[in-house]
Amino acid sequence: MIPIDPSEVWEDIEKIHERSPLIHNITNYVVMNTTANALLAIGASPVMAHAAEEIEDMIGLASALVINIGTLSPPWVASMRKAMSRAGKKNIPVVLDPVGAGATRYRTSTALMLVSEGRPAVVRANASEIMSLQTRGGRTKGVDSLHRPEEAVDVARILSEKFDLTVSISGAKDMIIKKDLTAVVGNGHSMMPRVTGLGCTASALTGVFAAVNPSIFKAATHAMIVMGIAGEIAAEKAAGPGTFQIHFLDALYNLALRDLKERIRAEKSDG
Amino acid sequence: MIPIDPSEVWEDIEKIHERSPLIHNITNYVVMNTTANALLAIGASPVMAHAAEEIEDMIGLASALVINIGTLSPPWVASMRKAMSRAGKKNIPVVLDPVGAGATRYRTSTALMLVSEGRPAVVRANASEIMSLQTRGGRTKGVDSLHRPEEAVDVARILSEKFDLTVSISGAKDMIIKKDLTAVVGNGHSMMPRVTGLGCTASALTGVFAAVNPSIFKAATHAMIVMGIAGEIAAEKAAGPGTFQIHFLDALYNLALRDLKERIRAEKSDG
Amino acid sequence: MIPIDPSEVWEDIEKIHERSPLIHNITNYVVMNTTANALLAIGASPVMAHAAEEIEDMIGLASALVINIGTLSPPWVASMRKAMSRAGKKNIPVVLDPVGAGATRYRTSTALMLVSEGRPAVVRANASEIMSLQTRGGRTKGVDSLHRPEEAVDVARILSEKFDLTVSISGAKDMIIKKDLTAVVGNGHSMMPRVTGLGCTASALTGVFAAVNPSIFKAATHAMIVMGIAGEIAAEKAAGPGTFQIHFLDALYNLALRDLKERIRAEKSDG
Repeated sequence: MIPIDPSEVWEDIEKIHERSPLIHNITNYVVMNTTANALLAIGASPVMAHAAEEIEDMIGLASALVINIGTLSPPWVASMRKAMSRAGKKNIPVVLDPVGAGATRYRTSTALMLVSEGRPAVVRANASEIMSLQTRGGRTKGVDSLHRPEEAVDVARILSEKFDLTVSISGAKDMIIKKDLTAVVGNGHSMMPRVTGLGCTASALTGVFAAVNPSIFKAATHAMIVMGIAGEIAAEKAAGPGTFQIHFLDALYNLALRDLKERIRAEKSDG
Repeated sequence: MIPIDPSEVWEDIEKIHERSPLIHNITNYVVMNTTANALLAIGASPVMAHAAEEIEDMIGLASALVINIGTLSPPWVASMRKAMSRAGKKNIPVVLDPVGAGATRYRTSTALMLVSEGRPAVVRANASEIMSLQTRGGRTKGVDSLHRPEEAVDVARILSEKFDLTVSISGAKDMIIKKDLTAVVGNGHSMMPRVTGLGCTASALTGVFAAVNPSIFKAATHAMIVMGIAGEIAAEKAAGPGTFQIHFLDALYNLALRDLKERIRAEKSDG
Repeated sequence: MIPIDPSEVWEDIEKIHERSPLIHNITNYVVMNTTANALLAIGASPVMAHAAEEIEDMIGLASALVINIGTLSPPWVASMRKAMSRAGKKNIPVVLDPVGAGATRYRTSTALMLVSEGRPAVVRANASEIMSLQTRGGRTKGVDSLHRPEEAVDVARILSEKFDLTVSISGAKDMIIKKDLTAVVGNGHSMMPRVTGLGCTASALTGVFAAVNPSIFKAATHAMIVMGIAGEIAAEKAAGPGTFQIHFLDALYNLALRDLKERIRAEKSDG
């Protein structure tokens, strides 16, 4: 494993600031506002649109697609399938966040269907969710993880091989897996799981980085580094999860190369 | 009336911290984010899930169910009915928040149907909403109360007797009614009605306390005490309803036995 | 052009504080929470309700209707049409926010249909959205504007004449157009486009002012002045878009005549 150079993360951020890529989100009701704000704060241009009637046009404008099943229902799943299909034809990267996979059979089977049929470039989730994609019928507790990322690495590698995708597993240490490649991100803060939707924000930021970096593995890794560092900066200013949220957005907005250099704790496979 | 002992409230909070109960919410679009954050801040594990396809599985994992009709529509009401039925079979407590009952006939009739058919353990609402559940066809102004809790006590007691439930009425003084039992909570702050969704948060917290305290009457009372005290702490730090919101979440997260001891203004029937 | 007198804006605010008008919103999932909070902060009473089953009753209670197509879908559009029709019969002002018109054919055609059939009193949008209402089939990038308000003035004036409405175009300088009348508002801050939903908030506040001021042109202008001044106050206290959001709500809540007098930069046609 070798340390990740902060300047390669910064290059992506500069591209985001220059291009302001349009990120098309079909996501859950809980996090739409916070996701849109995080995308604006990092410099991207978010759009939330789920109607089948406009998916083709909206994908035509987008630089990445982010799919999140946090409050799924059949009409929304139909739109997700359509959007993933169009994104595949247009060759823009798709990030899938299988929120709560493992908690209910409906979520697990939907997530498996979207992975196998929709061919996302990245699946970003917590360890329990990733593990549920292997052990069909396995169940977890709601939307919070009962497992550490390390426990999900084997499943992640199998998924990556089988579906040719990158798996980004969030946790105390984030692990990003692409076939035989591994990255580990140590940045982050223990208050992050106490704020709703930060996992969803991580997925959306992964979409932003995938819109500007042709290496999806690097994009997924850089997104988690930025999440973690912004979380650390926010935690230093916060007195609880309420103030954390708003300082987190400020930190994304104000993120500087110096912050990356001072704080980065991330490494990847040497090869 | 006798004062409520802060240590009995604190016992519940310790259980919440230990168990992190999963609270299943079928709630309105406006407050999903703030409700989830309040549940996380107090130490619970929130999940929002409304699809009929997954309700049975999700109820199977939940320690309480919170139903809120703030942005109701027929498919959501169908899911609410299904969820309440399953919760009844599994014997987990259900909290119903009949947002805007009295404002439209659709809301009033839906709320009445969910009360009579779904048999919630608690109905938590403002005074106008409670009163509308008695006077079918009565109308109020939107989702804000035109009445004081004291005016709704008689209706609350009738509802409690008829449907064997606890009624929690929020207002300048909160009143909790269970048949011949009464509790009055004087905590709270006048800025709270100027922040959207704090009533909905009160309902969700009532679900959390009901998940750990077998006395539903006590659970409903403790939830309003915690709401009120967190509101007072937030108001001292806030310059308006924007800063109030985030300090409120911080206050829930940081709440200590000392805060309860110093601030509690609550009493209940002696017997 | 003559300067706008801050005391005429203040008169509206005093009426809002006195009357607390009920504003019925059929808006998008992303901004429901922030819109409700902005309406509460300024002193109005917000309600979000989209079910066809209750629209007639809710319009019956409302002093203004705000329609926003940010996350449109056919059932919601059907409710918007029904609500606009009822509002027309009851003669309460309707504000339409055609979010993303121009980005997809579905949005553009829906916006055009709602303008021509629903006869809103105000269309409030960014310049690209306004321009798309003229050039059917024109496309823009997502929901952010690629044009300056000045570029949309001609289209705005044509729309105003054709449909007898006021057009409020937000941008670095906001421009309000009613047939041959023009107002220009220079208040505001460059951080505002980096917070999601502030355009939607502007539309909702336009509804509030239209509920208390019989001159729709003045109401639309006053709303943009208040938006801009609250934005300036918030920006002075903010370190980024996260803290901006909450100080913006505080600023709406605390807005005083003195703030208007010190900060107003707005003028209108002399005549």
